[in-house]
Amino acid sequence: MRIIILGGDGYLGWPTAMHFAAAGHQVWAVDNYLRRKVALETDSEALIPTPNLAERARFFRERTNQEIAVDIFDCNDFHRMSELFERVRPDAVVHYAEQPSAPYSMRGFDEARLTLANNIGVTFNLIWAVLRHAPQCHIIKLGTMGEYGTPNIDIEEGWIEIEHKGRRDKFLYPRAAGSLYHTTKVLDTDLLWFYVRLYGLRVTDLMQGPVYGLETDQSRIDERLLPNFHYDDIFGTAVNRFLVQAVAGVPLTVYGKGGQTRGYLNIRDTLQCVDLAVSNPVPAGELRVLNQFTELFSVNELAARVREAGDALGLDVQVRNLPNPRKEKEEHYYNAQSTGLQELGLKPHAMTREVLSDMLKTVMRHKALIETGRIMPRVRWN
Amino acid sequence: MRIIILGGDGYLGWPTAMHFAAAGHQVWAVDNYLRRKVALETDSEALIPTPNLAERARFFRERTNQEIAVDIFDCNDFHRMSELFERVRPDAVVHYAEQPSAPYSMRGFDEARLTLANNIGVTFNLIWAVLRHAPQCHIIKLGTMGEYGTPNIDIEEGWIEIEHKGRRDKFLYPRAAGSLYHTTKVLDTDLLWFYVRLYGLRVTDLMQGPVYGLETDQSRIDERLLPNFHYDDIFGTAVNRFLVQAVAGVPLTVYGKGGQTRGYLNIRDTLQCVDLAVSNPVPAGELRVLNQFTELFSVNELAARVREAGDALGLDVQVRNLPNPRKEKEEHYYNAQSTGLQELGLKPHAMTREVLSDMLKTVMRHKALIETGRIMPRVRWN
Repeated sequence: MRIIILGGDGYLGWPTAMHFAAAGHQVWAVDNYLRRKVALETDSEALIPTPNLAERARFFRERTNQEIAVDIFDCNDFHRMSELFERVRPDAVVHYAEQPSAPYSMRGFDEARLTLANNIGVTFNLIWAVLRHAPQCHIIKLGTMGEYGTPNIDIEEGWIEIEHKGRRDKFLYPRAAGSLYHTTKVLDTDLLWFYVRLYGLRVTDLMQGPVYGLETDQSRIDERLLPNFHYDDIFGTAVNRFLVQAVAGVPLTVYGKGGQTRGYLNIRDTLQCVDLAVSNPVPAGELRVLNQFTELFSVNELAARVREAGDALGLDVQVRNLPNPRKEKEEHYYNAQSTGLQELGLKPHAMTREVLSDMLKTVMRHKALIETGRIMPRVRWN
Repeated sequence: MRIIILGGDGYLGWPTAMHFAAAGHQVWAVDNYLRRKVALETDSEALIPTPNLAERARFFRERTNQEIAVDIFDCNDFHRMSELFERVRPDAVVHYAEQPSAPYSMRGFDEARLTLANNIGVTFNLIWAVLRHAPQCHIIKLGTMGEYGTPNIDIEEGWIEIEHKGRRDKFLYPRAAGSLYHTTKVLDTDLLWFYVRLYGLRVTDLMQGPVYGLETDQSRIDERLLPNFHYDDIFGTAVNRFLVQAVAGVPLTVYGKGGQTRGYLNIRDTLQCVDLAVSNPVPAGELRVLNQFTELFSVNELAARVREAGDALGLDVQVRNLPNPRKEKEEHYYNAQSTGLQELGLKPHAMTREVLSDMLKTVMRHKALIETGRIMPRVRWN
């Protein structure tokens, strides 16, 4: 297949590009280095310096003899997007090209505006590039479980049947996200669903939870092929922050009461899920929504797991509750469905002590690079 | 009160500005003439030439000694919006500043992009101008009943309580609009609801149906103060098209089977509703949604009413069903609630034969200006 990866320099974009190239597909990876630019400007750079996308593609070719075509441009520029889709006429496109940081999107007007303009603009351009040049192309869009927020009823996979005053209909599951970043993904979904209904696009929306892990079949080949590992308050997930704090001897910073429950998954499972989506395209006019996570747990449970793995490695791991810089429920009902991907064949990898231990060892090898000033929250929601 | 009207040159913006000025408020009307520009470019100009906004404000002052301050700029320019809100520090803002044509938004990439960028961009700037300079200001946003689409269950006023697997929660009523224009209003709602939740904005979202009518207490004073009357396929509503067709001796063009049911209201009732919203502000952190229409009927019923009123004036009115240029259900369940505004005190004006007759007479006075080439659909949804 001919597959375009938008946001191919990202934490997931790069491993996805390698994964599909290794599986024998023709792969184009596009990026404008927006995340690198924001990371530089906000002093939030990754722990392990990562070569640029062209360099990574060269290393990958040298080590595997497999090709990833690299294109550096802004997907918010329709002229460039259109030109790419006309040239490639892809069978599938995986859309990661969004400003992905919730705290960054809550920092102020400029950051909010950039997040909104980039995320909606790129999704809109993607829709039109597909309509114009590859109407059969299957769009795999990365959404987020955060679109749903924390409702008091079970979270279904994208859709809900509502019975109301004796009548029934099926709707997109209501969404109420907790940051502007997450809200832009809600807008993306609205926009995609409109064009699916009207023009018969084929779209799979992967509602993903926080992803952890560095090791994939391809990243094992050479450390220069590792995904970005951000541990700062802007791009770092709670998992990464906790791992770095455990290694640096800083107490794990749980925001608020720590009862916030989310669905997590291993980066290997992200690759499986995206592969399953690409291998099982939807018919024209269908928006398939799949909840993409493998385990549910609270921030407190996550901290306990990291502490356990750290203690086993001889680290003395402490946990500290911080005033929550975010505005979110710290104790809430949370029961989310995620059967769709398992029905397609997903074989989940659990967050075992071994997995955490391997990540801790990677961080320990780069301990000298840790900047502890990047870990504490620098953005408050209010 | 100090009231800003965004989109003050529009069909509703201008009468709203006059209404609040006549009621003794301080009024600022802002516009960038986007609708006039689009109307010019698409050969869709109003039946009766309308003076520009500064001229109308001058005529209004000459006739009533009441003041409307006029500012001509693009609300998508945050610098200008911010400057205005800092200078005025309004108590209320009425937001009409959106590209309002569904067919225009479906014409092609450029028109869709303009609609998306303008409508979301202006709403975003409004949110931030209020946050920065007038956090207590009550935002009155014009939404549309079209956001809901035509669901198979009753349409509630913005919110719905869902019982699901034995648990309950309240959500924004699911939305599924029929054009990109209507979809941008869904995105507006998502964006406003997010910032209401997070930062305690005060917002009333008026989900309005198609408005008809030219006569208000102020527009009666002088024909130069009339609202714009568009009868073309781009900006004209079905009501206006039918009125002009009746006068021009062209059969009324019902799209498809004509069973499409919508909620309509008189322009006098729009002014009442906006006034009631402004006079009854919501507390901080509340998004109040009010369904704004007074009568429900199908396109076939509307055509029958216009025919009846036309025949009474001696016009020989015919009705013709056209292939539907839009993608919409032509026969569907439709039961929408609208009690909120009546509870606030709305006294509805019905679409009587007299009301239609008065509009027909206004059109008859300008019969020579009718361009019949503007009436038939020039944009198809597919």
